[in-house]
Amino acid sequence: MASGLLVDIHTHVYLPRYAALLRARSAVPFISSTVTPNGKLDERLLILDHEPSGGRPVGPQYWDREEKLKFMDKHGIDVSPSPTVDSLKDSTSSANPWLDFLSASQARTLATQLNEDLEEHCFTSPTLQDILPIKRLYGFGLLPLVPGISTASLVDTVKQISQLPHLRGLIMGTRGVGKGLDDQALDPVWAATEEAGLVVFIHPHYGVDAKAWGEKDNGHVLPLALGFPFETTIATARLILSGVLDRYPSLRLLLAHSGGALPQLSSRLASCIDHDPVVASRLKHDARYYLGKLYLDAVAYGPEELGFVSDVIARSGRYEGGSFTPMAVDRSLGSQRMLFGTDHPFFPPLSLTEKWKSVVENLEAIDAVEGWSQADRDGVRGGNAVSLFNLSR
Amino acid sequence: MASGLLVDIHTHVYLPRYAALLRARSAVPFISSTVTPNGKLDERLLILDHEPSGGRPVGPQYWDREEKLKFMDKHGIDVSPSPTVDSLKDSTSSANPWLDFLSASQARTLATQLNEDLEEHCFTSPTLQDILPIKRLYGFGLLPLVPGISTASLVDTVKQISQLPHLRGLIMGTRGVGKGLDDQALDPVWAATEEAGLVVFIHPHYGVDAKAWGEKDNGHVLPLALGFPFETTIATARLILSGVLDRYPSLRLLLAHSGGALPQLSSRLASCIDHDPVVASRLKHDARYYLGKLYLDAVAYGPEELGFVSDVIARSGRYEGGSFTPMAVDRSLGSQRMLFGTDHPFFPPLSLTEKWKSVVENLEAIDAVEGWSQADRDGVRGGNAVSLFNLSR
Repeated sequence: MASGLLVDIHTHVYLPRYAALLRARSAVPFISSTVTPNGKLDERLLILDHEPSGGRPVGPQYWDREEKLKFMDKHGIDVSPSPTVDSLKDSTSSANPWLDFLSASQARTLATQLNEDLEEHCFTSPTLQDILPIKRLYGFGLLPLVPGISTASLVDTVKQISQLPHLRGLIMGTRGVGKGLDDQALDPVWAATEEAGLVVFIHPHYGVDAKAWGEKDNGHVLPLALGFPFETTIATARLILSGVLDRYPSLRLLLAHSGGALPQLSSRLASCIDHDPVVASRLKHDARYYLGKLYLDAVAYGPEELGFVSDVIARSGRYEGGSFTPMAVDRSLGSQRMLFGTDHPFFPPLSLTEKWKSVVENLEAIDAVEGWSQADRDGVRGGNAVSLFNLSR
Repeated sequence: MASGLLVDIHTHVYLPRYAALLRARSAVPFISSTVTPNGKLDERLLILDHEPSGGRPVGPQYWDREEKLKFMDKHGIDVSPSPTVDSLKDSTSSANPWLDFLSASQARTLATQLNEDLEEHCFTSPTLQDILPIKRLYGFGLLPLVPGISTASLVDTVKQISQLPHLRGLIMGTRGVGKGLDDQALDPVWAATEEAGLVVFIHPHYGVDAKAWGEKDNGHVLPLALGFPFETTIATARLILSGVLDRYPSLRLLLAHSGGALPQLSSRLASCIDHDPVVASRLKHDARYYLGKLYLDAVAYGPEELGFVSDVIARSGRYEGGSFTPMAVDRSLGSQRMLFGTDHPFFPPLSLTEKWKSVVENLEAIDAVEGWSQADRDGVRGGNAVSLFNLSR
C-alpha cells in the first residue's frame, strides 16, 4: 500500500510557540524584526554565533503548515517522474538549536508543550487521499537536553513522546546535558528510547570552532557545508567509542546529512582504534560494523555520495567478527537504511518561482545512483521511512 | 620501465638536525628523554597539545635511513602479490609540525638547511637495482611558513627546492603565514610553485579545537581519525573558495588521507556555495570541478573509500560547465590521481615482528576496489607517482 510514497524525513518546523519565544529574545538564538522603508516586516533568524549577512530571512515557510503542505505538493507532484508517487509526506522536527539555551525548568516545560503542539500539528494535518491511515505530517519530539536537567525528566519526556501517536521519534543535537552524547548519564535515555522503539534523529547545530573558517567572508558556506557534518561525525564517533551501540543494540539512530563525514572516515577511524589497544578493547566490533546499525538520510546532493554511503552500510557485516576479507558489497542492502530528506525550509531557491534546486538535486541523486534497483530507489524515496517509522500502523 | 613500482608518497622523516632541535626543546613540539629503571633510553615525541599517553615512543624509524629502507624492503617484497613489483620507493617529507614554532629568521635558516639535508639524504640513498636512474628516496622540501616571514624568503625557498634535484615537491601545513592557505599573501608562493612544477603536499597537523573531543579518554583516536582529515578538508575548501585553483590552474596539490572528508562533502559544499550568490560569483566552476584538479593519496584504509574518491575525481569534468546531468563515472579515470602511501613511521604495528597492518590494509584496499583494472591498481601503487614526480627523468 505504502509503496511509491515520497517521504521527507528531514524537514524542520519552528512551531508558533517556539517562534514566539525566539521573537522575545535579543541574543542568539532569536528572531529580529525590522520594518523596511516600504513598510514590509523583515524578520531574520539568527541561530548561530557570528551569523553572517544579518541572519536568514524567515517567513511562513518556517512555521505555517499550509506553506509546508504547499512546498510538499509542489515537489511531490511535479518533480517525481514516477506515476506511483502519491504525495510528499513529512516527518517534521523542531529546529535547531531546540531548547539548548533555556534553563532546566524552562526547557522541561517547553519540551512538554512543544511535543503536544507538534502532535496537534500532525494529528490535524490532512490525511493522504486514498491511503486513509496515513497522515501527511508526523513528528520528531524534543527532550529538554540542557545542563542540570534530571534523568527522570528526560525519561519522562521520552515516555510522553512515545504516547503521542503522531510523534515517531525524537530529534536531538549533540551536546547532551552539556558533555556530549557519550555521557554515561544519558544511558537511561538510550534505554528508554530503545524500549519505546523511537527513532533518534541526530542533527548538528554548532559545527566546530569558528576560528577554523579563517578571516575571509564566505557567508554561511563553511559552517554549513563542513561544520554541520563534522559535528555529526564527531558525535557519532564518540557514541561508538563510548559503547552506546554495544549496550543498546536495538537503538535506532538516524543521522542528518548522510552521516556527515563518518562514512568516508570510517576505515580511518577503525584503523586509529585498532592502533590503540586500550580503546579497541572497549568495543565489541570494528568501528565499521556500527555504521550498518545506523540510518542515514539521503541529503548529500550527489549520486556518488549516496552510492558510497550505501556501500559503507552494506559492508558493515564484513566487520562483525575480528578479521575480514574485502569483497564486493551489495549496495541494495545499504540503500535500505537511507531515507530521502529536504532540509526544508533551509536551502531555499534563489528565485521565488522555481522548484527548490536543493530538493531536485537530492531526488535526481537518488535516481542516478549506480547499482540501485528501482525498488531500492523507491525505498530511499519513501518505503524505508514507512517501515522505520511504522507509518502504516 | 617504471611500471610495477610500489611508491610510497606519504612517509615522514625527522631528519637528524630536526630531531636534535626537538630534543633541545621542552614545550610542544619536543622529544622528551628519560632512562627506564633497566637503563634503556625512552624517547617520546610530543607534537600535539594535550598529547595523551605521554607522547609517542620514537626511535630510529623516525630518523634513520637504514630503518626506512628496512621498512620499505619488508613491505615491498613481502606484501605485494605481483611479480613485477621491484621495490618500495619513498617520497619522504619532513614531519609535522615542520617549522611552525620558530621565529621567521630561525625558520628561514632551518628550512634552507633541512632542504639541503633532505637532498643529501635522498641523493646518497641507494639506487634501484636494474633501474639505474631512480633513487629509492626522493623528498618534499619545506618552506619557512611562519608569521612575519617575507614573501621573498618564501619564493626564494621555492626556488631552492626546485634546484635540488631529489626534491620533487614541498610539504606544508594549513596555517600559511598565520592566516591559512586562503591568504592572498601566498599568491606569489603558488605562482612560483606552479612555475617550478613542484607538487604541494598539504598535510594536517592541528585538527580542530580539542573541546570537540569531549571529556572521555579516547587516546589519539579522535584527533587523528577525525581532526586531521577535517583540517585538510577545511584548508582545501578555503583554497577553492579563495579562487587559488582558478588563478593557478596548473598548480599540483596533493592532499593527505585521500582528501579527508572533502570528497564526501563536495556536493554539499557545491550546494552551499550555490545558495550564496556572492560566494558563487567569485568562482569559475562548481566546487566539484576542482576536486578533479587535485591529487589524493590512497591512505584511507578501505576499498570503498578509494573507489568513492576515484568516482569523485572522475565526475569532476561533469561540473566544468554550468549545468550537469548525472551519468556513470569512469573510476579508472579517477584512479589516475590517486597515489599509495603508508604514513610511516606513524601507525606502527602493535607487535614488533609482524608486517605493518596499516600498510597491508592500504595495499589490500587498492587491490579490492571494484571497477579498477590491474593497470589502475598499478598506477595507484606507483605508476601515477612516477608520472607526477617525473621520477624517470
